[in-house]
Amino acid sequence: MRRRDDARHSRQRARILEVAQRCFAVGGFHQTGMAEICAAAGMSPGALYRYFDSKQAIIEAMAEQERQDNRRALAPLATADNVIDGLLRVVAGLAPMWGSRAAGRLTLEVGAEAARNDRIAEIFAAADADVRELLTAALRTGQERGEVRRNLDPAATAFVLIALVDGLIGRGAFPLPVPRKAVSAALADLIRRLLAP
Amino acid sequence: MRRRDDARHSRQRARILEVAQRCFAVGGFHQTGMAEICAAAGMSPGALYRYFDSKQAIIEAMAEQERQDNRRALAPLATADNVIDGLLRVVAGLAPMWGSRAAGRLTLEVGAEAARNDRIAEIFAAADADVRELLTAALRTGQERGEVRRNLDPAATAFVLIALVDGLIGRGAFPLPVPRKAVSAALADLIRRLLAP
Repeated sequence: MRRRDDARHSRQRARILEVAQRCFAVGGFHQTGMAEICAAAGMSPGALYRYFDSKQAIIEAMAEQERQDNRRALAPLATADNVIDGLLRVVAGLAPMWGSRAAGRLTLEVGAEAARNDRIAEIFAAADADVRELLTAALRTGQERGEVRRNLDPAATAFVLIALVDGLIGRGAFPLPVPRKAVSAALADLIRRLLAP
Repeated sequence: MRRRDDARHSRQRARILEVAQRCFAVGGFHQTGMAEICAAAGMSPGALYRYFDSKQAIIEAMAEQERQDNRRALAPLATADNVIDGLLRVVAGLAPMWGSRAAGRLTLEVGAEAARNDRIAEIFAAADADVRELLTAALRTGQERGEVRRNLDPAATAFVLIALVDGLIGRGAFPLPVPRKAVSAALADLIRRLLAP
């Protein structure tokens, strides 16, 4: 029984998070209250507070989920035969994000809110540092193995690539001026040329 | 007399725009009212309304200014001896933006607001299309002249480069994890390798 309850609790939490993210993306963090999230989730405040006791708690759970999503997205870096192939698989996995209005809006909203709110900035900075460290380490490994050009600054390149992915996802909030496939192809091309020895 | 009045009017408009942008970057578009902008500018509402009759009018003027700034920033594309050199000069000119907290905040705020507000999205889309068209045309010219690799999609590459600059400026809202100079160097490196024939 206990296990079934836990599974139900996790499912409900995930559903509330999804609903809340949609509300934030459409209306903004500031303008979205717990009452609106309750209404959108079809739950009473009492029921919702069993899962999250504040908007802050929802945002923290979003950041934690982003952290897990990021790690999953970067997994090919650890398993691929070489670093460039791994990174190409990572960006291929991100393709559904190019032109995703929901992902674009949420990224812009999280960014704007973090820029104004130190506590939220801190929460997302941890998820961000994770990605940067994993990517920097992968580039270093690639250099040691001779797969990645040696006269490349791993930390700065990781930062630039992350800013690029950020920028591309944010642009999804607006109509893409080129087909999604062309974005993927241009990005793969960029990674190959930037990193190849 | 008339000319002196015009110059004064322009200077005042520019000053109000600057103050308003700072207010928006700190407090967000939605949360910033005309009263706050008046207070920050040290003007009475009556005086401010002689320059801008609404927040929307201020935002439209910001977009128009961005359009002019963008054109100025891209000017080296038209005057440089070759397209890659021109683009390297453009990004060198953008260097003060990497790590600029004010520019980062404002970019994120404009993006988030545009994602929620179609009228603002439309205003900024025009400034954006300008940059994309100029850059796409420059890449095509570079291909015709043999300065830029021919098997490159000019429109998609322009879009990816713009998203990258967006992403980098937005990141300025938070502490840079690498020195500003390293960002500039990695970006110049990326452009050379991506575009070289």
